[in-house]
Amino acid sequence: MALIVQKYGGSSVADAEKIKNVARRVAQTREKGNQVVVVVSAMGDTTDELIKLAYQINDRPDERELDMLLSTGEIISCTLLAMALEAMGYEAISLSGAQAGIRTDSSYSRARIQRVDPERITKELDKGNIVIVAGFQGITDEMDVTTLGRGGSDTTAVALAASLGAGVCQIYTDVEGVFSADPRLVPEAKKVSEIGYEEMLELATYGAKVMHPRAVELGELFNVPILVASSFTENPGTLIHGGVSMEVRNKVRGIAHDLDVAKITLVGIPDRPGTAAAIFEPLAKANISVDTIVQNASVNNITDLTFTIAKSQLKKAMDVVKPLARSIGAKDCASDAKLGKVSIIGTGMQNTPGYAARMFGALSEHGINIQLITTSEIRITCIIAEDKVKEAVRVLHRAFELEG
Amino acid sequence: MALIVQKYGGSSVADAEKIKNVARRVAQTREKGNQVVVVVSAMGDTTDELIKLAYQINDRPDERELDMLLSTGEIISCTLLAMALEAMGYEAISLSGAQAGIRTDSSYSRARIQRVDPERITKELDKGNIVIVAGFQGITDEMDVTTLGRGGSDTTAVALAASLGAGVCQIYTDVEGVFSADPRLVPEAKKVSEIGYEEMLELATYGAKVMHPRAVELGELFNVPILVASSFTENPGTLIHGGVSMEVRNKVRGIAHDLDVAKITLVGIPDRPGTAAAIFEPLAKANISVDTIVQNASVNNITDLTFTIAKSQLKKAMDVVKPLARSIGAKDCASDAKLGKVSIIGTGMQNTPGYAARMFGALSEHGINIQLITTSEIRITCIIAEDKVKEAVRVLHRAFELEG
Repeated sequence: MALIVQKYGGSSVADAEKIKNVARRVAQTREKGNQVVVVVSAMGDTTDELIKLAYQINDRPDERELDMLLSTGEIISCTLLAMALEAMGYEAISLSGAQAGIRTDSSYSRARIQRVDPERITKELDKGNIVIVAGFQGITDEMDVTTLGRGGSDTTAVALAASLGAGVCQIYTDVEGVFSADPRLVPEAKKVSEIGYEEMLELATYGAKVMHPRAVELGELFNVPILVASSFTENPGTLIHGGVSMEVRNKVRGIAHDLDVAKITLVGIPDRPGTAAAIFEPLAKANISVDTIVQNASVNNITDLTFTIAKSQLKKAMDVVKPLARSIGAKDCASDAKLGKVSIIGTGMQNTPGYAARMFGALSEHGINIQLITTSEIRITCIIAEDKVKEAVRVLHRAFELEG
Repeated sequence: MALIVQKYGGSSVADAEKIKNVARRVAQTREKGNQVVVVVSAMGDTTDELIKLAYQINDRPDERELDMLLSTGEIISCTLLAMALEAMGYEAISLSGAQAGIRTDSSYSRARIQRVDPERITKELDKGNIVIVAGFQGITDEMDVTTLGRGGSDTTAVALAASLGAGVCQIYTDVEGVFSADPRLVPEAKKVSEIGYEEMLELATYGAKVMHPRAVELGELFNVPILVASSFTENPGTLIHGGVSMEVRNKVRGIAHDLDVAKITLVGIPDRPGTAAAIFEPLAKANISVDTIVQNASVNNITDLTFTIAKSQLKKAMDVVKPLARSIGAKDCASDAKLGKVSIIGTGMQNTPGYAARMFGALSEHGINIQLITTSEIRITCIIAEDKVKEAVRVLHRAFELEG
């Protein structure tokens, strides 16, 4: 008998009817002779409503209290799903994160899973139960409730699949799988039937919002195959796993983009040790996430340093950087909030000539100016004007013949 | 430093503003130099809404799942109260029933507290925290969440007061305290400033819905003084405790009534051993609560047996009793669904002549016919026609000069 972990997101359990629909899908999996562990998110907007309630009472709610408050959302949905399965004649039991043995550190609102104690789940599976686990939450060694932050329920599901040795972790969501580009921008974008963890990570990090990167990372670490598919259709979805052929003819798997990019450039700074630290340590202390960093080769010991951040953090970042710019001897400190990113993603591109050239050429042919370039082993990213991003995605999707 | 346990009901924490109001009251108690443990119910109609949701999904929801679902209501209100106190600058922490060490048996939906492990609460009090505990819930030794059933949050509060050795357990509700009769029936009813546990139990059992009897029983068992008062005013309320003077001039403390009474009479049954068991064992198996039982003295070994039940259970009870009546040789089986009860309550009445006579006389003077009479050590109850109950309460309130 195979063990399957399934996860259903908030939009899949938004009301009583949708919960019954999920119950039918879980029952089908059970009927095929599998043991099933199901992870659920909170119903629809429950989490947002609880946050709103908290802020009506305290404009800076304590994180421990907020985590305990928010954890109720997933407990509600998992008890209701258990009841729906029981109404259909199946044996089911709901478990909170604490009961399911999800042990975390005590970083409230962004806790990390330290281990899973799977005894209770195993006991319930052995009794013949379908086990429903509240996603997004865990418990510290002091028995305080934590939440896992963004992508929490996906992470719960993959962690359970890893610790239970499940054959697959199925993430059911409101999209059909991973596409070669955002279908809202590129109507001819096609669903990818399989993809490697690293490629998925780059797609996820660079704007394909199908699944949170930390859950993909965890899947890679424990080699858990992850299926991403729609909870509303029977279509096959995308399988994320480690066995993807590295020698396919077209190494580009997809085009990612991100419209939320702002840039700060320090012009004419003396190229000496400690300059970068003098800038980025204060930014980190101010809790500003820096994304891409590019430093040009220095000419006469004078260089330019450019980095990108989310638009919403630009003002705060400039407040930090401006006084620093003066103190490190920069000639100027400039910013641009109207930028975006477009990336081509694919394992093995780096060792194969021509992909970068083809990307830059396609953009250039359409008059799209590249402001910054960064690359990783499986990604080439260009920072361009925000109002050119959509066109760039379409241009690259065609240039790499991703329409299939 | 004194330790005080306070409990606030659902109507006292029904929305953000009311939660802030409760926070101010808790803070006042803290400011007087007390350590404070607060027990809260779920906000307003939350519990009813969760039950409704469950029944949309399963018309016979599993009790374990329902308990876990309902437990979220109190967790929400206790985290919000902690946030409200923190917004006012106080140190506070919320604890679920499990975290607070409320250990119960596994009778879901009506669990009994077996013990309280107060280590966590004590630790938090020692740190200077105001401790907010989710009422109405506990946890089994297997870490399954239970709810305590009706009167659950009151019971949580009294159990905590007992196990922590608190000086007083304050139950804040939407009434001003315990009255000599229902003020809606008797406008001149007066608030009782203090009352004994037993008297309070009789008042509560017989229709004075101020506080659930099981919490009062627990208070008596551990000799915890319980103050019942309004959460919306500063009025003093009623103190329930063991030191009430037994030799006050007027032994009648109050008039209780109950409009929900139906009666079944088995006429002309042979008076032999086993007859009562033959009737009441099947009723118990059918989960029908029998209240008053009266059997008349037998004449020629033939007797009548009358008992009362809640009106809603009359049909079910008659379905059980009718075939039994035949098998035990009863001549007839009659029922009456239009009855009510009126009681006078007071310690020491039994040893003092005249109270019963005065009660029967007052009712008789007003043409109110008594159908059944039962007494306990501190109570005399008459079963009368439902449409005479309100008049009877007023008549008795005057007859025993309770208007003060």
